[in-house]
Amino acid sequence: MSYKNLDHLNQTLHALSHAMAILGADEATNMPTGGGAERANSLSALTAMHHEKASAPHIADWIEKAENSKLDTDQKHALAEFKRLYEQRTCLPAEFVGAKTKSAMKCEQLWRELRPKGDWKSFAPALGEVISFAREEAQMRSHNTGLKPYDAMIDQYDPGNKMADIDPVFAELKVFLKSFVPEALEIQKQRLADRPLKPLNAPFPVEKQRSLGQSIMKQMGFDFNNGRLDTSHHPFCGGVPTDVRMTTRYQTDTFLPGLMGILHETGHAQYEQGLPRDNAHWPHNQARGMGMHESQSLFVEMQIVRSPMFWKWVIPLISEHLGSHVFENWEIEDVLVHVNLIERGFIRVDADEVTYPLHVILRYELEQDLIGQKIEVHHIPEAWNAKMEEYLGLSTLDNMSDGPMQDVHWPAGLFGYFPSYTLGALMAAQQWASLVKQIPTAPSQIEQGNFNEINAWRAKNVWQKGSRFSTTQMMEQATGEPLNPAYFIAHLQQRYAK
Amino acid sequence: MSYKNLDHLNQTLHALSHAMAILGADEATNMPTGGGAERANSLSALTAMHHEKASAPHIADWIEKAENSKLDTDQKHALAEFKRLYEQRTCLPAEFVGAKTKSAMKCEQLWRELRPKGDWKSFAPALGEVISFAREEAQMRSHNTGLKPYDAMIDQYDPGNKMADIDPVFAELKVFLKSFVPEALEIQKQRLADRPLKPLNAPFPVEKQRSLGQSIMKQMGFDFNNGRLDTSHHPFCGGVPTDVRMTTRYQTDTFLPGLMGILHETGHAQYEQGLPRDNAHWPHNQARGMGMHESQSLFVEMQIVRSPMFWKWVIPLISEHLGSHVFENWEIEDVLVHVNLIERGFIRVDADEVTYPLHVILRYELEQDLIGQKIEVHHIPEAWNAKMEEYLGLSTLDNMSDGPMQDVHWPAGLFGYFPSYTLGALMAAQQWASLVKQIPTAPSQIEQGNFNEINAWRAKNVWQKGSRFSTTQMMEQATGEPLNPAYFIAHLQQRYAK
Repeated sequence: MSYKNLDHLNQTLHALSHAMAILGADEATNMPTGGGAERANSLSALTAMHHEKASAPHIADWIEKAENSKLDTDQKHALAEFKRLYEQRTCLPAEFVGAKTKSAMKCEQLWRELRPKGDWKSFAPALGEVISFAREEAQMRSHNTGLKPYDAMIDQYDPGNKMADIDPVFAELKVFLKSFVPEALEIQKQRLADRPLKPLNAPFPVEKQRSLGQSIMKQMGFDFNNGRLDTSHHPFCGGVPTDVRMTTRYQTDTFLPGLMGILHETGHAQYEQGLPRDNAHWPHNQARGMGMHESQSLFVEMQIVRSPMFWKWVIPLISEHLGSHVFENWEIEDVLVHVNLIERGFIRVDADEVTYPLHVILRYELEQDLIGQKIEVHHIPEAWNAKMEEYLGLSTLDNMSDGPMQDVHWPAGLFGYFPSYTLGALMAAQQWASLVKQIPTAPSQIEQGNFNEINAWRAKNVWQKGSRFSTTQMMEQATGEPLNPAYFIAHLQQRYAK
Repeated sequence: MSYKNLDHLNQTLHALSHAMAILGADEATNMPTGGGAERANSLSALTAMHHEKASAPHIADWIEKAENSKLDTDQKHALAEFKRLYEQRTCLPAEFVGAKTKSAMKCEQLWRELRPKGDWKSFAPALGEVISFAREEAQMRSHNTGLKPYDAMIDQYDPGNKMADIDPVFAELKVFLKSFVPEALEIQKQRLADRPLKPLNAPFPVEKQRSLGQSIMKQMGFDFNNGRLDTSHHPFCGGVPTDVRMTTRYQTDTFLPGLMGILHETGHAQYEQGLPRDNAHWPHNQARGMGMHESQSLFVEMQIVRSPMFWKWVIPLISEHLGSHVFENWEIEDVLVHVNLIERGFIRVDADEVTYPLHVILRYELEQDLIGQKIEVHHIPEAWNAKMEEYLGLSTLDNMSDGPMQDVHWPAGLFGYFPSYTLGALMAAQQWASLVKQIPTAPSQIEQGNFNEINAWRAKNVWQKGSRFSTTQMMEQATGEPLNPAYFIAHLQQRYAK
């Protein structure tokens, strides 16, 4: 009976989440500017409603009674994951969630307007408000879980990961990358001297880029009966598993960033579309967390796409869609210097996989200081700049658009999210190494554009598990060992220093 | 205090309505097929939530207390309209509304799939379920309002209109049209002999048609900062006043139906965009009803667009967007025979304004019989056919797609809605006659593409009034007399029989 009550509740929550997911995707892809204020109000009210229903006090009773009733294995998984989320939710009052969401929605809309102008001054007060809410939230979550405030924020996105674990991993990576980035840049310099960068035969009409992207997505396993590809300012994968809303953004002078956006988000989309469909309204059938999610996008983008095997398959497809002149007289190595170009740059989403972790570590460290109240919103420009200069030798003081205003995460109130990106990169490298050990022909299958066996491995080891196990358990089951940064470091060395 | 409670409640209801409106528009324009089942569940749950919140028993108390408190004139309008809707809502239990909506969503999705095949047999059981719900609903509404069951259904869409009023108006129209249709067809035959129909210079690429439509919409007053134009199977105007989602459908062999769809929906869109923005979450600032709404679309489509004055302005715009060859050597009269072509046809939405009311009267009569349990779902094909043969001399027995499967209304559970279309046509003719009496230069302003004064008249007399007055009061205030079918009949005679 209590389990039945919980089942009905999850159906209602699932419906509200569905609405919020589609409204969110619509806002970024379709909504006219004038619709923003009302959309913010509506999403805020829906979030509050979801929170109110999901955190009602009588649910604790249902959980306890259900725990003492006869449940099969799957129901036990369902209940455990629901309980974990319930405890995470009940530390925030509904009104706080509503106000926090409204503040974040407003800040996000302001960000969309002000980022192109780099108008930090007009933007900072709204971001300051979002940070205040994040601090208050971290305190409440800390109080409830016994975790440190910032750990309690991370725990929402990547269950179980803590500063105590991440700090040494990131410290090791930072040390490695500080020496590896200049080394790899030097090797690249020599490579480019031997094989100069060939110019791309621009322009590339958006319509043709889209059709190329759709064709590759489809063959890699994206199901267009349960999803679509749109355009937005920042690529994302949203919507719901039966209606995945994936986006990219296009430039006409090069098709590579638009295509890379598509391939990255395809990895996310496959995870969503591959989740268990039975009892999809229960949280144990939803994706494990942000780190695992990022492992799926980076598995596609970094392990598959930026390797020679992928281009062997895809170059003819590109010729078909964009014209045979695009890669005429190119060798695969000519493409690889393009897609694996390393550069010290301002923008995280445009960064290569070698410098990317440094962008993440910068944000991770600033977030620790912001949530820990060691710095305030007005310190961000200088603090950001100092780290950019130290890690990448770049100054952002006069360039807020490409500095602290570049990402949607902070305006959207997502603190604790960034570390997942790099944890995901480590997991992806480890998953790929394990897959190739089990399926030695995987690289040659990719050369044929055949993703069946590879997707089956991913479905079995990641997608179909939903949230039945912790990230660590999943990694151990799939690869035979816990998360080990050696695979990522070896991957970088193999690709950039050999 | 009670008024404040109601204000907060209306904000919550407004947020849920916002979500449902955008999800509904998204479903018809963007959603992949596989997303249908989950979308149906989600919309059903949101509808039930809206209904539960909007019909809670304690609201009656708030209304009563607010009525006895000090309110200004606008608050009195607000409360009166809210009370009317509350009483309309409270006769249906939340569970019934949820089940009814789910059944209608399923039937609508089935309709989208089966209509192209004309598969009535697979469709009928789902429609039968929707009809059962409609009958039950009509009984409940009748019980609550004291109106007859079908009147109680009409009252939701067009407050105050009753069969006792509509029957004689429709009877008069039916008599007039039965003799006028053959007469007008005979006159048209002679006109076409004098001025044969010139072929259109097809094909017309969809992209160019869209840009033409957007350009005309804009100059007529559609605000693209608060709305957009998309494509769907059936043209509609959805969304919310700050984010209007308008659609049309295109053919490439002619641009006229696509453009007419746009212009019709532009009339609806202007009403929504022109509603009062202050306290937009209160129902007295929302559109009056479906009849008044249709008067706005038909005011644009029938009174403005299908007249010589409009084409004098718009022909150069068409040449600009679609190419100067389109209307080369055409006189305005050549265009008019195209856009004012009368034809006995199967499809209501494709019908001209002369035969259109007969399509509506057919549905109105069938709905009376369906709700009155005089016929069942399996009688529809024959009953439909008999009336089509009597009114328009056409048989639909072997053509369900173009017969009872042509409209979304019944699968969507909208019984009582159809009469509004023809009541709207009558109102539009009367509004235009009154406007021209007050602004004699209106026709020559349209020839210049100047809609400022005309839109100001419509804003003052229709849009800005929201739901402060009944349809009849609004017509009397705007035109100095109650609804009078003579204007519509005179309009038809002037356009088609002179």
